[in-house]
Amino acid sequence: MQRCDMLGALSDEPDRLTRQFAGDSMRRAHEQVGKWMQEAGLVVRNDNIGNLRGRYEGTTAGDPTLLLGSHLDSVRDAGKYDGPLGVVVAIAAVQALHDAKRRLPFAIEVLAFADEEGLRFSSTYLGSRAVAGSFDFADLDRSDAKGITMAEAIRAFGGDPARIDEDRWRQGKVLGYCEVHIEQGPVLEARGLPVGVVTAIAGQARYSITFKGEAGHAGTVPMRSRRDALAAAAEFVLAVEADALSQDGVVATVGQLEVEPGAANVVPGEVKLTLDIRHADDEIRIERARRILERAQEIGKRRSIDVVTHPTSENPSVACAPRLVSLLAKAIEESGHPVLHLASGAGHDVVPMSAITDVAMLFVRCQGGISHNPAESVEVEDVGVSIEVLTRFLELLAKA
Amino acid sequence: MQRCDMLGALSDEPDRLTRQFAGDSMRRAHEQVGKWMQEAGLVVRNDNIGNLRGRYEGTTAGDPTLLLGSHLDSVRDAGKYDGPLGVVVAIAAVQALHDAKRRLPFAIEVLAFADEEGLRFSSTYLGSRAVAGSFDFADLDRSDAKGITMAEAIRAFGGDPARIDEDRWRQGKVLGYCEVHIEQGPVLEARGLPVGVVTAIAGQARYSITFKGEAGHAGTVPMRSRRDALAAAAEFVLAVEADALSQDGVVATVGQLEVEPGAANVVPGEVKLTLDIRHADDEIRIERARRILERAQEIGKRRSIDVVTHPTSENPSVACAPRLVSLLAKAIEESGHPVLHLASGAGHDVVPMSAITDVAMLFVRCQGGISHNPAESVEVEDVGVSIEVLTRFLELLAKA
Repeated sequence: MQRCDMLGALSDEPDRLTRQFAGDSMRRAHEQVGKWMQEAGLVVRNDNIGNLRGRYEGTTAGDPTLLLGSHLDSVRDAGKYDGPLGVVVAIAAVQALHDAKRRLPFAIEVLAFADEEGLRFSSTYLGSRAVAGSFDFADLDRSDAKGITMAEAIRAFGGDPARIDEDRWRQGKVLGYCEVHIEQGPVLEARGLPVGVVTAIAGQARYSITFKGEAGHAGTVPMRSRRDALAAAAEFVLAVEADALSQDGVVATVGQLEVEPGAANVVPGEVKLTLDIRHADDEIRIERARRILERAQEIGKRRSIDVVTHPTSENPSVACAPRLVSLLAKAIEESGHPVLHLASGAGHDVVPMSAITDVAMLFVRCQGGISHNPAESVEVEDVGVSIEVLTRFLELLAKA
Repeated sequence: MQRCDMLGALSDEPDRLTRQFAGDSMRRAHEQVGKWMQEAGLVVRNDNIGNLRGRYEGTTAGDPTLLLGSHLDSVRDAGKYDGPLGVVVAIAAVQALHDAKRRLPFAIEVLAFADEEGLRFSSTYLGSRAVAGSFDFADLDRSDAKGITMAEAIRAFGGDPARIDEDRWRQGKVLGYCEVHIEQGPVLEARGLPVGVVTAIAGQARYSITFKGEAGHAGTVPMRSRRDALAAAAEFVLAVEADALSQDGVVATVGQLEVEPGAANVVPGEVKLTLDIRHADDEIRIERARRILERAQEIGKRRSIDVVTHPTSENPSVACAPRLVSLLAKAIEESGHPVLHLASGAGHDVVPMSAITDVAMLFVRCQGGISHNPAESVEVEDVGVSIEVLTRFLELLAKA
């Protein structure tokens, strides 16, 4: 907790926590985390993209490696735990081995990723994509708000953008990648549980939907003559909510909605909105989306409103490895807590990492499910449980 | 129709019709309309606010005056008929008297108002409020988009802002103010009628309503844990529509709606929207508004959303004078057309004018009910009917 407080004080902005990729506060975070890694017996190095990596060897050279970690960057005006908690908990688990002078039959590498949130360059997972070998070199030309390109930022941070390919995992066999992270949702809190095992990262699709009716004078066009785009959109918003409520685990959100012309005395002529729909099972998600988009057309037809739907992004779900999930569940049980399996509605570094190895995640309860906000809060006892579970997980994996 | 085309070519902008208060295109419109007035035997003068006034004396000095007119200013990217049509039709009716060398037992004054739309200074009815004696001198300090104050604009146009009080009607007894205007709605078109008699200008109330829920991550907050401000607002938009449909003559509109934070992956935390509700009967409007705002609270309560409603403006309805309404109806009958009485959902110069005299309006059918748009369109035959009806109205009033 103290360590999260210390990292929370390292910000690019004076009065709030904003720690962007390859910035000054990230450099200070590296100095700090690097010291903690060394104290825990980890051998520290920086890679080209700007990840901080700490390696704790196994009993024999040539042992496979288990990867642990999370990210050190944040959103703007962030909380202290989204990301850093996973790094700090991983270091604490290794510290316990180091203090006990224990080596396991595998090496452990703690990865503190340089960018997951994508604040600076609107490009996510830069750190884990470099490790997974899916870094997109075209991104190097992206500029931040000050006009600095990603290539320049990486060079200023000490990396060589031309050699990001070398960041790709090449250190032999990997047992998996396991990440501890705050839940960012209210489920554990509602169930009264300190931690939970993630079964999958929900697949996610986004759509842009336009309702085109006819603008008109709010005083002179009678109700029955209207083709009000907002009334149609409102029906759709409620249909989305009702449909998502009808199937467990589906979340569907209309987060953006813009009205044209948007004047108090004009009947709305056009509404543009976004639909975001997620579920751990891609088939269920696709079927729900099909039904919801069909409903949009029905509403449009009934109201003489043109409805144009346009898919804007789609990310399939990522399943956690059953073997690692059951070891995490066993570790929770052994720690004396009930086991709850849940899906993650948010994306995490496990998504790109799943391309090169088995992945697993342990969620830690957070207050009110609040994240991406200074009000982000976790209990010290819950963090203690997560360290204990991760430590037991390492022991179970060693015995497996 | 040619005259409306000619005026439609006088614009402050090169490729679209925008004729603001006291601008260059208004000056050219005055030159043009002044010539037509003189040809029709009207004695022309400008007043201080910038109205153009043409007077046609009656049989004897000291006769009362009938006021006719409409406005010459426009909205941005306007149509050619909203305003100018009423001025041109009034001149045409006087022209007929002049051609026949007829004088009536009352004088006629055609008022071409300088500002009804309020584009330049966001302040409406400047022209008719000056005549009605309700001009607000504090408005003189308002600035347009270029920083020119209203006082400066008036001076540049040739008026004296300090003497606007002299624009107030002081020329003796007034019989009434009658305005010809496009309907700006689809009712006459739907009924297949060229013209209609206005019974009242609907009263109008506006509200600003805020729905405060809780923002959350679109992936991690389960549907049943959400306090989605947009879902509540959507329910409200549909409740407004349903309530207005339940009572004849009510129009209710949610024209503006803004979502905070307004990101595709965030459950909406707050929605701010406008409600505009109108009816010719103030009691009915007030009762409908009460029920609709009550519904907002019900929706909020059920969804744990705070609902704050704030009245932003209220204008009571203005009744047209029964005596003038029945004379207009008789004139329509005599012209061989069925008589339709209807309320005006939009405000017009008759609203301020009603403070000093009886008012009446004749609506002319417009295509698709479209106004405030270059697609604004009227049929030449319908304009012919409106001139005939106004001419007969003058004769009926002379005999009354």
